[in-house]
Amino acid sequence: MTTPSTPRLYHTALSPYCRKVRLVLGEKRVEVELVEERWWEPGSEILRRNPAGKIPVLRIDGRLLAESQAICEYLDETIPSPPLMPTTPIERHEVRRLCAWFDDKFNDEVTRPILSERVWKKVMKAGYPDSRLVKSGLRAVKDHIDYLGSLLEQRKWLAGNTLSLADFTAAAHLSCLDYISDVDWDRSSVLREWYATVKSRPAFRSVLADQVSGLAPAPHYAQLDF
Amino acid sequence: MTTPSTPRLYHTALSPYCRKVRLVLGEKRVEVELVEERWWEPGSEILRRNPAGKIPVLRIDGRLLAESQAICEYLDETIPSPPLMPTTPIERHEVRRLCAWFDDKFNDEVTRPILSERVWKKVMKAGYPDSRLVKSGLRAVKDHIDYLGSLLEQRKWLAGNTLSLADFTAAAHLSCLDYISDVDWDRSSVLREWYATVKSRPAFRSVLADQVSGLAPAPHYAQLDF
Repeated sequence: MTTPSTPRLYHTALSPYCRKVRLVLGEKRVEVELVEERWWEPGSEILRRNPAGKIPVLRIDGRLLAESQAICEYLDETIPSPPLMPTTPIERHEVRRLCAWFDDKFNDEVTRPILSERVWKKVMKAGYPDSRLVKSGLRAVKDHIDYLGSLLEQRKWLAGNTLSLADFTAAAHLSCLDYISDVDWDRSSVLREWYATVKSRPAFRSVLADQVSGLAPAPHYAQLDF
Repeated sequence: MTTPSTPRLYHTALSPYCRKVRLVLGEKRVEVELVEERWWEPGSEILRRNPAGKIPVLRIDGRLLAESQAICEYLDETIPSPPLMPTTPIERHEVRRLCAWFDDKFNDEVTRPILSERVWKKVMKAGYPDSRLVKSGLRAVKDHIDYLGSLLEQRKWLAGNTLSLADFTAAAHLSCLDYISDVDWDRSSVLREWYATVKSRPAFRSVLADQVSGLAPAPHYAQLDF
């Protein structure tokens, strides 16, 4: 049951950027109406909602907000509890550095090559996967797992000793890959433990319930003990 | 003359991300030592400074900071005058949305295709320009100029009525293109006026003095009246 003031998120299920916003809304216990935006289909009105033509778009407080990082910073500033940005500038820099790590570097090297070939070509009926791109993503993910493991050897959470937007940004990307079973959790036990902890938060429930038509999730995807 | 505590920026001249940080440092009147980082050459130590292997990297306050947007937010939080982020969450969202517009969308569609072909292949001795990419960048820039023009018809500065990080992010990208004369300023008189105003700020002086070896700037590049 939603009211006129319930925020509405235009999204698609396996977009890491949409998931990032959903996880932050969930963590802050904001009820949201999810509307699937099939922006690649004729008749999509995405450009009316966001001139950049991208999802997510969040309708909240009477406005349409775009760009996942900008949306999440807005949510953290307007709904302070629980805080997802630490208090000192140097800690905040570290959170933002790691958000950019995932949203730029990890996406370029891993999420996009794998999802575009294994998911989006299927969903958009745009041909067969290019196995070279998938392989390059699967090669690159190893170095990223090692880097994240090295951070988590020294820290409780990715950016420091408190849970932050960096953890949800990382989990948003990794959970998309985990849906199609492309994360080798055996490679790093600290990363597996961290993901199990993040995954068990109530904010994660909606993401774990996602089903993409014609593409069943990996059997362990929604299991908290994987 | 620099002291041990002078911040040091590892950069290259025509990187929009490095320019963005230089412009913010300049606007806040922070003296900085510029060190050219030729990260593509053997022996570069970029990975020791930033595991993402990217510039800019700023050494400041005893730390090495990476990711241009995260660096600029850090600088704005630690050196508040003059402020480059507005005070309300909705205005701050608009600044961050436009920063992402340039650093992601404009870069993907315009800055990278044009600079990679016209500048970086030459500097890195990596072959001849692919004219299809240059043409696609030159086509795309028209829509961006129209969009920026439509914003500036309604606002004094890009994100609203105060100068912000969005203006310097935009100017960082446009100034790299302007160095090789790839901005059609005749297309939008409000955009030209805005750029002339930004370009005349003292923060811009160091950027206008840039010279890339073997690649002279366009004749109007450093002229305040162009």
